[in-house]
Amino acid sequence: MKVELYFNALQTDELQFRDRVVVVIDVLRAGTTIATALLNGAKEIIPVTSVESAVKMGTNLFGDVTLLGGERNAKTIEGFNLGNSPLEYTEHVVKGKSIIFHSSNGSQAVLKGRHAKRVVLAAFVNISRVVDFLLGTGAQIALLCAGRSTDGFSLEDTLCGGMIVSKLLEKAEQVEFTDSSLMALTLYKNFGKNILKALRTSEHGRYLTDLGFEDDIKLCAGVDTVPVLPTLEGSVIRRLKTARGRTKKLRSRHTVRAGS
Amino acid sequence: MKVELYFNALQTDELQFRDRVVVVIDVLRAGTTIATALLNGAKEIIPVTSVESAVKMGTNLFGDVTLLGGERNAKTIEGFNLGNSPLEYTEHVVKGKSIIFHSSNGSQAVLKGRHAKRVVLAAFVNISRVVDFLLGTGAQIALLCAGRSTDGFSLEDTLCGGMIVSKLLEKAEQVEFTDSSLMALTLYKNFGKNILKALRTSEHGRYLTDLGFEDDIKLCAGVDTVPVLPTLEGSVIRRLKTARGRTKKLRSRHTVRAGS
Repeated sequence: MKVELYFNALQTDELQFRDRVVVVIDVLRAGTTIATALLNGAKEIIPVTSVESAVKMGTNLFGDVTLLGGERNAKTIEGFNLGNSPLEYTEHVVKGKSIIFHSSNGSQAVLKGRHAKRVVLAAFVNISRVVDFLLGTGAQIALLCAGRSTDGFSLEDTLCGGMIVSKLLEKAEQVEFTDSSLMALTLYKNFGKNILKALRTSEHGRYLTDLGFEDDIKLCAGVDTVPVLPTLEGSVIRRLKTARGRTKKLRSRHTVRAGS
Repeated sequence: MKVELYFNALQTDELQFRDRVVVVIDVLRAGTTIATALLNGAKEIIPVTSVESAVKMGTNLFGDVTLLGGERNAKTIEGFNLGNSPLEYTEHVVKGKSIIFHSSNGSQAVLKGRHAKRVVLAAFVNISRVVDFLLGTGAQIALLCAGRSTDGFSLEDTLCGGMIVSKLLEKAEQVEFTDSSLMALTLYKNFGKNILKALRTSEHGRYLTDLGFEDDIKLCAGVDTVPVLPTLEGSVIRRLKTARGRTKKLRSRHTVRAGS
């Protein structure tokens, strides 16, 4: 099982992931928020890469079943129903709704995986679900961190990638590293004992703390607190419910490709 | 003293380094090779970003004082005098010569720094010279890894960056990290005890070993074995000889900018 890791999506090309299962990691906060929204009954999340697309798409849909969510510079966008705090995505607010969602880096990363065998979204809150899924796929894995806009690298996403690698190592027969997945594992071995502290130490964690999102950081540091597996189906993110259904689907897609 | 680190030059913009001292790190092998060439008396290294530029530039210069050096996929380029192995750059071959030099990532990284306050080149072989220089500048530091063409990240360059951070921490009054410079430091703490082993483990190290460059890797793992400080002057790389001359020059450039 070869595990690659990319610190951000900017330098990646969507075609390079054709034969991979892509795990988009966005700890602070889109990955955590999307998992939370799906756990609380949101029908689907529609990721878009620009605020303009979100607004345009939103005006063509029914307001009572659609919400606009996401952030720019970590703040709620003017005219949007929701920001990027998982605390806002309560059952009362999101149940049964389609949510058009924009975030600075997470949405872009998700859409980079659209030609992959499968795209799932990971954060600490759903990490064991992700790992169990990966162990069942048998495919080559690309961990695609959302990263940051500044220098492309985020400590928290890479740390989460390192924890995935560590958990795979416990269970998979053999794991082959790249330089970057080895680095992520190293980071996890050093900082994984206190995830909350690591998130608070990270650049984006400090930025969020300054904006008053300390409670979000605590929530994002939780491990396996939101046990759902968000996956991209076409252009929307839905909850993948059963392991059996998922494996079957993946196999059939693979077979079609191999024979075409 | 704030220390940033970039895993590669691709996503960086040359204007972002205007007020920084940039340290281009290319352990395997351009940084090591260029330091070796300068130690052995090469007059200057002229970095170019394409093979075509190198050939074009080479044909306009006198063959007895100019050499073409560098690599594509780690191999010597057809028609070039030298590859990218430091072992080729002996005193007998390079003394007094100008060397037009192309390498896959190193040349690009050097030229990204052309608007910086100062660009120096680092590898393990000259690391203490680099650190001593940085301690004297007082400027914000950008460690710019050459990285790899595949996923942008190279273990060996980041490890070297981590060693620079570690040495700065020993001597500077205060060091401020970014997520990526903290990660590099973590890597160094974990793998710094056996640099040769780390280089052999790295993806590019394994690739070079497969090509028969095992001796190059040993040479590149040497610490402070080539105590010169290559620096960019205009568009060429020369040896910076005295700390006094360098500091004076840096100050005067800074003053001109501040007043303009």
